[in-house]
Amino acid sequence: METRNLIGYSYQPEQGNKFKAVDPSLGVDLPGEFYAASIAEAGAAMNLADKAFGFYRHIGNSKKAAFLHSIADEIIAIGNPLIERAMAESGLPAARLQGERARTTNQLKMFADLLEEGSWVEAVIDTAIPDRQPLPRIDIRKMMVPLGPCVVFGASNFPMAFSVAGGDTAAALAAGCPVVVKAHPAHPGTSALVAEAIKKAAEKTGMPEGVFSILYDDGYAIGEALVKHPKTKIVTFTGSFKGGMALVKMARERDEPIPVFAEMGSTNPIIFLPKALENRAEGLAKLSASITTNAGQFCTQPGLLIAVRSEGLEKFKKALSIAIADVNSATMLTPGICANFNRLSSGMLADDAVTVIAKSDKLDATKINQGIAVVTEITAAAFLADEKFKEEVFGPYSMLVIADDIAQLEQVVDSLHGQLTATVMAENEELPNYKSITDKLSNLAGRIILNGPPTGVEVGNAIQHGGPFPATSDSRFTSVGTSSIKRFVRPVCWQNWSEDLLPDELKTSNPLKIWRLFNNEWTK
Amino acid sequence: METRNLIGYSYQPEQGNKFKAVDPSLGVDLPGEFYAASIAEAGAAMNLADKAFGFYRHIGNSKKAAFLHSIADEIIAIGNPLIERAMAESGLPAARLQGERARTTNQLKMFADLLEEGSWVEAVIDTAIPDRQPLPRIDIRKMMVPLGPCVVFGASNFPMAFSVAGGDTAAALAAGCPVVVKAHPAHPGTSALVAEAIKKAAEKTGMPEGVFSILYDDGYAIGEALVKHPKTKIVTFTGSFKGGMALVKMARERDEPIPVFAEMGSTNPIIFLPKALENRAEGLAKLSASITTNAGQFCTQPGLLIAVRSEGLEKFKKALSIAIADVNSATMLTPGICANFNRLSSGMLADDAVTVIAKSDKLDATKINQGIAVVTEITAAAFLADEKFKEEVFGPYSMLVIADDIAQLEQVVDSLHGQLTATVMAENEELPNYKSITDKLSNLAGRIILNGPPTGVEVGNAIQHGGPFPATSDSRFTSVGTSSIKRFVRPVCWQNWSEDLLPDELKTSNPLKIWRLFNNEWTK
Repeated sequence: METRNLIGYSYQPEQGNKFKAVDPSLGVDLPGEFYAASIAEAGAAMNLADKAFGFYRHIGNSKKAAFLHSIADEIIAIGNPLIERAMAESGLPAARLQGERARTTNQLKMFADLLEEGSWVEAVIDTAIPDRQPLPRIDIRKMMVPLGPCVVFGASNFPMAFSVAGGDTAAALAAGCPVVVKAHPAHPGTSALVAEAIKKAAEKTGMPEGVFSILYDDGYAIGEALVKHPKTKIVTFTGSFKGGMALVKMARERDEPIPVFAEMGSTNPIIFLPKALENRAEGLAKLSASITTNAGQFCTQPGLLIAVRSEGLEKFKKALSIAIADVNSATMLTPGICANFNRLSSGMLADDAVTVIAKSDKLDATKINQGIAVVTEITAAAFLADEKFKEEVFGPYSMLVIADDIAQLEQVVDSLHGQLTATVMAENEELPNYKSITDKLSNLAGRIILNGPPTGVEVGNAIQHGGPFPATSDSRFTSVGTSSIKRFVRPVCWQNWSEDLLPDELKTSNPLKIWRLFNNEWTK
Repeated sequence: METRNLIGYSYQPEQGNKFKAVDPSLGVDLPGEFYAASIAEAGAAMNLADKAFGFYRHIGNSKKAAFLHSIADEIIAIGNPLIERAMAESGLPAARLQGERARTTNQLKMFADLLEEGSWVEAVIDTAIPDRQPLPRIDIRKMMVPLGPCVVFGASNFPMAFSVAGGDTAAALAAGCPVVVKAHPAHPGTSALVAEAIKKAAEKTGMPEGVFSILYDDGYAIGEALVKHPKTKIVTFTGSFKGGMALVKMARERDEPIPVFAEMGSTNPIIFLPKALENRAEGLAKLSASITTNAGQFCTQPGLLIAVRSEGLEKFKKALSIAIADVNSATMLTPGICANFNRLSSGMLADDAVTVIAKSDKLDATKINQGIAVVTEITAAAFLADEKFKEEVFGPYSMLVIADDIAQLEQVVDSLHGQLTATVMAENEELPNYKSITDKLSNLAGRIILNGPPTGVEVGNAIQHGGPFPATSDSRFTSVGTSSIKRFVRPVCWQNWSEDLLPDELKTSNPLKIWRLFNNEWTK
């Protein structure tokens, strides 16, 4: 494992402050010393990325696709050492990390396919009409072009799929934007192994040096230097509201403000309608898995359950209580995340308005930093009276808000801030009676779900993983799926250029055979 | 003419500070007293817009299209009084304003057509695959939904096409977003006439009250109150960098930050390649029209001409000098804009590095606030040495930057900030020699033009009117053409909803017959 900072194809000298990764389940240091990058190295990485951009943005779709495929191959080639290191650094189980590795390589292949197909550039062509009255129409052709070098912050909770070669990196590279990764300090070893895979792939497929770099730091200085660097054009981040907004603020205050795509989490409310509770309270209690899997450390973990007081609800509470009691404790990603979980959940529990309705008693005493599942309840009146109950408790915690009637339940829904997801558990026949509620969901969240858990985000064309503030910093984009490439591009139109001078995507002959809006008709 | 503030369908009481419009060519007050809105009225307009949003967002495409058509009809129905009032308020000539009225009504009809066609919602459907391994795929369907109430700031330089019923309003209403217009204080009468047309159209087509309101103010308080109101979700603005950035800052500092689409102008560089100058210097001098028409008061007016020293360039300078000398002075939009033009252009002329190469001597002494065309020159070395030469001089002013050689010309191009447009004047056969320059243009601007003036923005599907900062606050969007609707929407996906519960756009049966990405295939 190469633990030094990587700028382009060069590992940097061993200098500066060193730090080690920690196994959160045991509290012991893991092998490998990482070097916190210097401000000069941050500048060098961005300048090299900008130089690479001049070439990389003009590289064809097929070559970029080959690069992405090669990254996926090199990640697989690491083999079990990658899974083992990620387990040690994150406390996540092997099966989950094997699944996450598959997601990571599938994402790379998905973007390679998108490039090979080619229509993602949204080509629009209006040809000249020289005899139009009162004025001739001139030839104009538009497509997406890459924005420039991108800084990707690795996320703590997906050490592969939202990290060094995760969705952000794959989408940025597909779009034509070089990437500089600021590795997450909780999993530097996993990051280093994947970075080496990307370096190999870039070299093998002849990419310009600087298309990828990675820097380590266990503090904030390097992240700040990268965001503030004049060559940086985009920043992506998945993490806390506080962390995301700090980056947003830095990016806004630059001479040239730049977009920050920060996915900052949410409480992902689930609304239970009366008939569903009446008919299948026990089935609904299976949500315990969505609340607690991997210690609930998902952006889409359901932290808020909302229902009207009823017999069905009592049955649901009972079934949920039994299910939660049976959930084993699980190692949280870092000691800091565990401490935060304990602080926030204890804070909720200490409030007089909050009652515990379900708590696990299955603590694994051989490990530390254990997240223990707990579900509480609160009346809608109390919930509405204090904003603090809306705060996300990142971990295996959920709060049931109990309304006196549907009107009060609707008040609770109206009071919520922007969310990644909003879910309704309902019988189909009762939904027409609650149109006023379901109509509101598409104004509240980016993904609205009927009768299913919000966790388990499908990676595809139709997914929207993003939502109104404060769930993300920009609700108009998704950080998962093929559409996430749109974060890294902007439209440019060519006016009055002849066939031979236009990009292939915009030539009348359509050599790439892509879908285009051509004189107001979709053709291929 | 109804001069009072309009909230929904109710004209407000005559109260508060009054102001009048001024004829800039004579400096005299025009008929009609307008009332600066109160902060309470700003709040009432936004609250009503939010209430209307709950209904308007669910109104079908056809009904919205009928509303837009009706606005166009009502504007035409005003007849000549609209043109006369706009002439008196703006100093612009009749023919230009008749053309602008046609553009305004055509934009409304263009969005109506877009709605009737329906594919603009970008529907993407991935149907369920229950037997997929290792996990089933769940049904997910995505489309664009409106963001919410929008505040539109009227622009000074297009009293119809970028004002009350201009491109921003048309696009917002088409998207499903209610609009509150802050009228530009330079043309309140034109604004009032058009507002009345929108009110009539909304009433006739049965739109929810609050879908449109208009407020007047000759200061900044109401604009600020509207941007800061919690129900406001989007702001659009076309004007100065200072004005745009003030709004951007306000919007960022809200509890819930919101997007501001500010088009803040640019210098729209034109690069002259040597062969073009050698072959057709006189023809190129016809650019004088693009520099001076309507006193050069266009966002895309070419304020910067860049060329290498040559005999051809000398011929161009001579021809341009003759053409510019022959340009009549023209009334500028407001006394403030004229004063600013005089201050900035005199500032340039006063610099030792700057020489006048062409100046009009045709002053219309019967009028005031006259913009007089002037073109200056500067060496590339001097231009590169001081950022101040990059500042936009809004009006009939352009500066020729003369480089010693192509390398220095490229340095000038490299030094430029983001632009709305960038133009190359070239012979086709010489372009391959300058690939390094032409490649850069798509990184510099939103629209890149070959052998034509940047003014005269085509309103269509392929246009990109927008560019990197500081030309606009968000280079990923256009403020002209059908794509400008994208500023007012965000994607939402529906997961696991049955056919009868989905929006029509997302039903498998495709009742609206729109283009959709359905299981990775474009179909209709």
